[in-house]
Amino acid sequence: MTAVGIDAIEIWTGNLKLDLPGTFAPQKGEDPEKYTKGLGLNASSFPDSYEDIVTMGANAAHRLMERKGLEPDDIGRIDVATESSFDNSKPVSTYVAGCLEQVYDGDFHHANKGERKFACIAGTQSLDDAYNWIRAGRNRGRSALVIATDTALYARGDAGEATQGAGAVAMLISEDPDLVELSAEQGYGSADETDFLKPNQQFPSVDGKRSVQVYLARMREAVEDYESVAGDVHLDDFAYAPFHTPFPGMVRKAALLAYRHVIRNTSVEEELADEIGRQPRAEAFDTDEAYRDALRDYMDSLKETDRYREWYAEAIDPTLSISREVGNWYTGSVHIARASALKEALEDGRDMTDERLLVGSYGSGAQAEIHAETVQDGWEKEIEALNVDEQLAERYDMDWEDYEEIHDAHNHEMDVDVEEFTTPSEEFVFDGWGRMGERKYRYVE
Amino acid sequence: MTAVGIDAIEIWTGNLKLDLPGTFAPQKGEDPEKYTKGLGLNASSFPDSYEDIVTMGANAAHRLMERKGLEPDDIGRIDVATESSFDNSKPVSTYVAGCLEQVYDGDFHHANKGERKFACIAGTQSLDDAYNWIRAGRNRGRSALVIATDTALYARGDAGEATQGAGAVAMLISEDPDLVELSAEQGYGSADETDFLKPNQQFPSVDGKRSVQVYLARMREAVEDYESVAGDVHLDDFAYAPFHTPFPGMVRKAALLAYRHVIRNTSVEEELADEIGRQPRAEAFDTDEAYRDALRDYMDSLKETDRYREWYAEAIDPTLSISREVGNWYTGSVHIARASALKEALEDGRDMTDERLLVGSYGSGAQAEIHAETVQDGWEKEIEALNVDEQLAERYDMDWEDYEEIHDAHNHEMDVDVEEFTTPSEEFVFDGWGRMGERKYRYVE
Repeated sequence: MTAVGIDAIEIWTGNLKLDLPGTFAPQKGEDPEKYTKGLGLNASSFPDSYEDIVTMGANAAHRLMERKGLEPDDIGRIDVATESSFDNSKPVSTYVAGCLEQVYDGDFHHANKGERKFACIAGTQSLDDAYNWIRAGRNRGRSALVIATDTALYARGDAGEATQGAGAVAMLISEDPDLVELSAEQGYGSADETDFLKPNQQFPSVDGKRSVQVYLARMREAVEDYESVAGDVHLDDFAYAPFHTPFPGMVRKAALLAYRHVIRNTSVEEELADEIGRQPRAEAFDTDEAYRDALRDYMDSLKETDRYREWYAEAIDPTLSISREVGNWYTGSVHIARASALKEALEDGRDMTDERLLVGSYGSGAQAEIHAETVQDGWEKEIEALNVDEQLAERYDMDWEDYEEIHDAHNHEMDVDVEEFTTPSEEFVFDGWGRMGERKYRYVE
Repeated sequence: MTAVGIDAIEIWTGNLKLDLPGTFAPQKGEDPEKYTKGLGLNASSFPDSYEDIVTMGANAAHRLMERKGLEPDDIGRIDVATESSFDNSKPVSTYVAGCLEQVYDGDFHHANKGERKFACIAGTQSLDDAYNWIRAGRNRGRSALVIATDTALYARGDAGEATQGAGAVAMLISEDPDLVELSAEQGYGSADETDFLKPNQQFPSVDGKRSVQVYLARMREAVEDYESVAGDVHLDDFAYAPFHTPFPGMVRKAALLAYRHVIRNTSVEEELADEIGRQPRAEAFDTDEAYRDALRDYMDSLKETDRYREWYAEAIDPTLSISREVGNWYTGSVHIARASALKEALEDGRDMTDERLLVGSYGSGAQAEIHAETVQDGWEKEIEALNVDEQLAERYDMDWEDYEEIHDAHNHEMDVDVEEFTTPSEEFVFDGWGRMGERKYRYVE
C-alpha cells in the first residue's frame, strides 16, 4: 500500500511578541517563574493589526507552495481548521484560496474547500479527512492542503491571558510523502464536556481545573482505543511523542500520566518496582479516594526516577521548544510540537528516517485522538527548509501599552484602528472591509 | 468493491409552521402568488421555543437509531454540518452525542465527532468524509452518523424572510447501504465569493441577485468537473436530479441552465433545433452582450418545449415537494430533495432499484458539488419508514403575533422568554443554561 501522509509543512507566526517574564509578569506583579517554570512559556505570538487567521494561513500555504513548486492545479482539497472564525457561513478556506489566486496564474475552482471546528483538535481531523480522501482514491493524483490557523486570545484579565498565541501551520497531504507517513490506526476518546466554551462569543469561558482533568481522561481513553487496534503501546518504539500543547506545563502532566498508563503490567513497571514499588491497583483499596491518593504518591515517585526523566528529556521535552516561544496556537499546536521535535533531531544530527512518532491531539469539548507516524527519508530537507527561528527572532517585541492596543484591535466588539507595529513584506495583509461586510486582502510585495 | 452510501435517513422538522400565502403575504400586503408561484413555497418550518439545532439533530438521529436497531457502539463517527452554530469552539456533535447518551446504555466515547461549516454544502461534505473514512478502511465495521441541522432565520424585514426554515436530516453512512450508493466520482466548482455572509452575526447579509448568478456559475463548473472524470452527463441516465433548494424557484432556474448545458452538442440539441434552433455559440457573436441575449432567448424557448417540460416534471419537480412545505433548511436542503424524489417514486409505485440520481449540492461563499447515486434495493422500506407527512401536518400553525414572538426567542441578541406553542413528546428539548453558559438538554417521555 502506498504511504500517505504529510509531504511538507510550513509555520507562520503572528508578527508581534509578548514577553511573558519580561513584560507580562511585572505588569501583573507576579514572579516571572510562574510563566517560565509553571506554564513553561517565555513568550506569546500576536497578530499585528494587518494580520488575522486568513493572512497567517495564506502566508503559510503560499510559502509551502512556493517551496514545493506547486501550482493551484496540484491541489484538490483545501481544509482550514480553526476556532477563531469570523463568519458563521463562509469558510476561511475560500478567503485563503482567494488570497493565493492573487499570486498564481491558475485557480482553485476544482478544489473542495472546507472548514472544521472542534476546539484544538480540528487540524488533526482535517489531516485525517485528507488522508481518507487519498486512500479512497478520489484525489486524481492531487494533494490536499490542510491549514490550522488561530488567534488564541482571551478576555483581558482572564486566567488564560498568559497562554495566548497566534499563528498558522500549513501541511501538504500526499501519497509518498517526504515528511511522515500516517498510521491507518487511530484511537479516540471523546465525551460531551464543558471545560472550554465560546457560546456566541469570541473569547473563551474556561474551567481551568476541569480542562486539565478532561484532557487527561480523554487522552487516556484515546490511548486505550488506539491500543485496541494497534496493539499495546511501548514507549521505546517511539522517538518522540508530540502532544497538543496549550502550554508546556500541561504536557508535563499528560506525559507522566501516559507513561504510567503504558508501563502498567510491563517489564518497565517491574524494573522500577525495586525503587518506587508497583503501581497501585484499584482492587487493593477500600475507597476510590484511597486509591487516588496512592496513585498520586506513585506518580510523584515515578516523576523523579532516572528512567522517567530520561524518557521525558528525550521524547517529550524536544516537542515543546517552539511552543515555549509562541504560546497556544489552538489547532496548530500539536503540529508545532511535531515540527519542534524533528527540528531538535536535525540540530542534534540524529537520523530519524523510519523512526516513529506517537501523536496525541486534543480539543476541549472534548476529544483526544492518538495515531502513529513514521518519519520518511525526505524529512531532513523538509525540516531544514523551515525558517521559524528567523520568524520568531524578527517579531516586534511589544511593551505593555502596545499589547493593550493590539488586543483591542483584534476584539470583534471594539472598533479601533491601530497603527501597525511592523512593515509587511512579501505577505498577504488585511486590506479593509467590502460592501457586504467581508474582509478583504492583498499581497504586499 | 463493496458499495458505500446512505443506509438510512430521517427527517425532523421544527414543530411550528408559518403559512406564507395565508399569514405572511397578507401581513406584507403582497400577492400570495409571489410566494407560492414565484418562490414556490407554501410554508416554512420554525423551531418552537424548546427546539434548536441540537434538539432537531438529536431527534432525527434518535429516530434513525431506533428504527435501525442501532446502539452507540455501532457508530464510529458523528459529524454535524451547520451554519447555525452557537459556539465558536465546542462542536454541535458533542451536544448531540450527549443527548443520545441520555437514552442509551452505551456511550459514543470512541466515535470521532466533528463539525463542518460551508454554508449549505457542509452536509454533503460530511457525507463525503464519511464515505472516504469507510473506503480508507478505518471504520472497523462501524457506520457514520451525518447530521445536517439548521435554523435558517433572517433579520426581520430582510428579503430572505420569506425563505426561512428549520429542521434536521440525519443520515447513516455504511457499507452495503439500503438506500443509495454514492459514486466515487465527484465534480467541484468553487470560488471565493461574497454572495451570502454572516460576518460575526447570526442573520445573513445576502446579495440576492449575485447569489443566483453564483449558484448557477459554480454548478456549471461542478458539472464540467464531474464530466471530466465520469464522462458526459446524459440526463436520460438519471431518474431524478435533487439539487440544493433554498426555494423551489431557484431550482427552476438551475434546472433550465443545467439542461441547456448538458444537451449542447448532443442529439437532443439537434432534435430540438427544428423547433427552437440550435444553441447560440459565443464565436458567432461580436459582443458578449449579444451572445448573452441570444442565450436568454434560447432558454426562454427551451423552457416551453414539451421535451424540457416533461423532463422537468419527471426529474426535478418531484424533488421539491417537501421543500415547498418547510422552506430552506440550509445544510439539510439537498438531502430533503433526495428524500422528496424517492417519496414521490414510492407513492407512484415506481421501481427505483438500480435507478440513478444526479445530486447537486451548493453552499454560498461559494461551492457546488456534483455526484451520482445508485438506488439500492432496500429503498422502499427506508422511504416507507419516513413520517415526514405526519410531522408536517402536526406543526402548530402560527399567527403573525406568534411568529414575531418566536423569531425574537431565537434571536441570540435578544433575551426573551416565550411560552412554548406545542407540547413536546418523546423528544429532546432545550432545558436551560449551565454554569459555563452551555445549553442543556433533556429527553421528554
